[in-house]
Amino acid sequence: MPDPRFFSVAGPFTVAEIARRTGASIGGAAQAELVLRDVAPLDTAGPDEVSWLDNRKYLDAFRRTRAGAVFVEPTLAPQAPATATVLVTAQPYRGYALAAQAFHPEPPPVPGVAPSAVIDPSARLGEGAAVEPNAVIGAGAEIGKRCLIGANSTVGAGSVLGDDVRIGANVSVSHALIGARVRLYPGVRIGQDGFGFALDPKGYVKVPQLGRVIIGDDVEIGANSTIDRGAGPDTVIGAGTMIDNLVQIGHNVQIGRGCVLVSQVGISGSTRLGDYVMIGGQGGLIGHLVIGSGARIGAQAGIMRDVAPGETVMGSPALPIKEFFRQVATLQRLAKKKSE
Amino acid sequence: MPDPRFFSVAGPFTVAEIARRTGASIGGAAQAELVLRDVAPLDTAGPDEVSWLDNRKYLDAFRRTRAGAVFVEPTLAPQAPATATVLVTAQPYRGYALAAQAFHPEPPPVPGVAPSAVIDPSARLGEGAAVEPNAVIGAGAEIGKRCLIGANSTVGAGSVLGDDVRIGANVSVSHALIGARVRLYPGVRIGQDGFGFALDPKGYVKVPQLGRVIIGDDVEIGANSTIDRGAGPDTVIGAGTMIDNLVQIGHNVQIGRGCVLVSQVGISGSTRLGDYVMIGGQGGLIGHLVIGSGARIGAQAGIMRDVAPGETVMGSPALPIKEFFRQVATLQRLAKKKSE
Amino acid sequence: MPDPRFFSVAGPFTVAEIARRTGASIGGAAQAELVLRDVAPLDTAGPDEVSWLDNRKYLDAFRRTRAGAVFVEPTLAPQAPATATVLVTAQPYRGYALAAQAFHPEPPPVPGVAPSAVIDPSARLGEGAAVEPNAVIGAGAEIGKRCLIGANSTVGAGSVLGDDVRIGANVSVSHALIGARVRLYPGVRIGQDGFGFALDPKGYVKVPQLGRVIIGDDVEIGANSTIDRGAGPDTVIGAGTMIDNLVQIGHNVQIGRGCVLVSQVGISGSTRLGDYVMIGGQGGLIGHLVIGSGARIGAQAGIMRDVAPGETVMGSPALPIKEFFRQVATLQRLAKKKSE
Repeated sequence: MPDPRFFSVAGPFTVAEIARRTGASIGGAAQAELVLRDVAPLDTAGPDEVSWLDNRKYLDAFRRTRAGAVFVEPTLAPQAPATATVLVTAQPYRGYALAAQAFHPEPPPVPGVAPSAVIDPSARLGEGAAVEPNAVIGAGAEIGKRCLIGANSTVGAGSVLGDDVRIGANVSVSHALIGARVRLYPGVRIGQDGFGFALDPKGYVKVPQLGRVIIGDDVEIGANSTIDRGAGPDTVIGAGTMIDNLVQIGHNVQIGRGCVLVSQVGISGSTRLGDYVMIGGQGGLIGHLVIGSGARIGAQAGIMRDVAPGETVMGSPALPIKEFFRQVATLQRLAKKKSE
Repeated sequence: MPDPRFFSVAGPFTVAEIARRTGASIGGAAQAELVLRDVAPLDTAGPDEVSWLDNRKYLDAFRRTRAGAVFVEPTLAPQAPATATVLVTAQPYRGYALAAQAFHPEPPPVPGVAPSAVIDPSARLGEGAAVEPNAVIGAGAEIGKRCLIGANSTVGAGSVLGDDVRIGANVSVSHALIGARVRLYPGVRIGQDGFGFALDPKGYVKVPQLGRVIIGDDVEIGANSTIDRGAGPDTVIGAGTMIDNLVQIGHNVQIGRGCVLVSQVGISGSTRLGDYVMIGGQGGLIGHLVIGSGARIGAQAGIMRDVAPGETVMGSPALPIKEFFRQVATLQRLAKKKSE
Repeated sequence: MPDPRFFSVAGPFTVAEIARRTGASIGGAAQAELVLRDVAPLDTAGPDEVSWLDNRKYLDAFRRTRAGAVFVEPTLAPQAPATATVLVTAQPYRGYALAAQAFHPEPPPVPGVAPSAVIDPSARLGEGAAVEPNAVIGAGAEIGKRCLIGANSTVGAGSVLGDDVRIGANVSVSHALIGARVRLYPGVRIGQDGFGFALDPKGYVKVPQLGRVIIGDDVEIGANSTIDRGAGPDTVIGAGTMIDNLVQIGHNVQIGRGCVLVSQVGISGSTRLGDYVMIGGQGGLIGHLVIGSGARIGAQAGIMRDVAPGETVMGSPALPIKEFFRQVATLQRLAKKKSE
């Protein structure tokens, strides 16, 4: 069971209730009225817990599980032990996620402003917003309903947050228009000047960065990631995009909907991503590229050219995945031959 | 026009005034008294706006622009449309930068100390300095004239800042001597212990880090970048060097003047860079190397040996650029041959 | 001598006292009663300073040093100049570290709570703890004896810190159980949600992250590094592990004892490291791997498979070190042949 110092518990719920909330259908032992008290992995779950199978690697654990109920795909459901009620769904992990949300709901922000918070009189706070200690909110900022502004965070003058935005501790936001239900984890930096300067015999000349950061609804941005504001155009993050920790997004970058950027990715200025692009950890993209929707970019890939929609690339400089592995194999073969 | 919630506007200015401020000469339609109200890109600029052409890729847009005036190189000036006054200069982007500074000047810090700031009585604040809410300034620190210390930032005991330094929100500075006009963007960490320890049968023994961070005039350091203090010698960043976001500088590193380090670069301890070295995004350098002035290091390059002055290298491990591309081509050819 | 604005000085100490504290034996000029006032490098040390030789590269400097005493390995001790007392030890750098600690002891935290700190009434502070300005400590948190909580840092509800933990400025901790003598440098983020979501036709579904971060004794975590809490299991960092700046540790990662992770390393979710694993700068590991004890992973390596105990690997995708260098040499040879 999750550590009660950190996580709340709701429930219990019957199998029927969990099925209703997840859209799964009930099979196997089919005890719709069985009472469930928590989620747990296959190998530790007990008769009053619900588990899930989303990887054939764990098929053995599934066959032996003591879990009262298990989310599972239709084709694997028949292999459940006799004691288990199966919750049949095409997406067992999604089922788990929704069940975990049911048993451990995230507490809503506790409305109110900490006495130590510093809020400019011209800023507007939506109904139910919570402002934690030492948070600083600038002139003219607009904070949506039920937003949470974490301790020691700053929201700069003029920035706008939609409803239900959650900002963690020690975050800095400026020059930004942020959609609803966005989450910024601790240490995120949004809206600072992009990296722009012009050459001059006497030294670099700073180029004023006159754009903003526009973030769509339901975006998440991981701890200590940095998103610079645009130089003139805006930097744009599309709705539903998921960004991991320590990711860098340069000025004028445009990211579509539902993209996934794993930790330590870096995207240079003015590059544009379509929708549902996935980039593995530490992948890097130079500036002014166009990456088509559905493209997949491998971990540590170095992208120096446009990537077509749906294409999968790997390596640095990156290649189409088949070509990449052919080159890896070729070099391996040649090196072996030489050493024989 | 830039969003007035975030950017101030000055002007208007005549073409003659903009020419005077940038050193450009007036040609084309040559309307020196034309009134300009803003900067804008070639494709959206109107008759009262000034634009720029610094990339032949946009030559078509230049020929069709409705901009009242355009910064342009001498050789391309004749292709301007009849309606445009040209501002002829060898560095059009620099012209744009200075014009943008004129129309959208950065507001000076508003002198004063926020009531919630915590400043040690022995710290000294220069005339006109601004200290934002919840900033913390330690014993004996010296803050120059017109400095801005951002909200929720900390300046540790004994650190010294020159005049006109701007520190963003949520920055930490310690053990540092910082020159004039330096900018530290949000989340920058300056002066913490370097990564130093000695082996011992009972565990690692911490090596005291007894040096400082010395930063020259006009340096910029991007969001969430980290610069460790020296172990005994100092860590040194030369004047005019530009550092992007999420860059790591290890202890004892010495960086010359006017270097450019793109996002996510990492430089290990005791490596020394000459002047005007450029390092692409995610480039990594091991420790104790010497990188000559004017060297160029490609994005994602892995530098394990010294680099000569003016040399350009790419790859990991890095090679001279010609050799790098020859190897890329060779492997491509061999992999193709094999698969035929 | 270290800058007195930043570093305290203790001593002087006799050679005999330094020998006693480091376990070294006295030889060479063998002046056990010589008074030492500081540590210094071989080339600048004077007759009242102690230096060290831990790299044959500096053998010449050793032969010419004016240092009063020098830590040195037994085999090199005979090459000391006649003026130098040698402090003979198998680990000269460790000797230096301990001597530097003696001359420049880290000041203990000054017990007390800054008036601007915000501490929940239900939090517990150990004897001698120091809480700096604007630090925020949540409900039920437990802070050990003599802990230091840096300015503008936050310790979330329920987190537990052992004795003598030092947290720098602008740090965020939540959902964490932290051992004794742990150091978190400025900007560290501990315990935020891992990067977990499930697919859904209507968008990604957040997977509640129900684990914690467990950190063993004597761990150090560098500036702006990020450690996500577990998804259900915990994220675990073993005792004595040293983590540099800007490192990313994903959810459920388990790291053994005494590991060393250099700057900008990234470890994806659920990967497990044994003890004393070393990872060079910018190395990246995908998720769900097993890395054996004593493995060494090169800088910028891309790890996509398990690594055996004691194995050394390099490259992306990574190879055993011999194979890596064989491939590098093969490609070099083939590219040269082609161009001849």
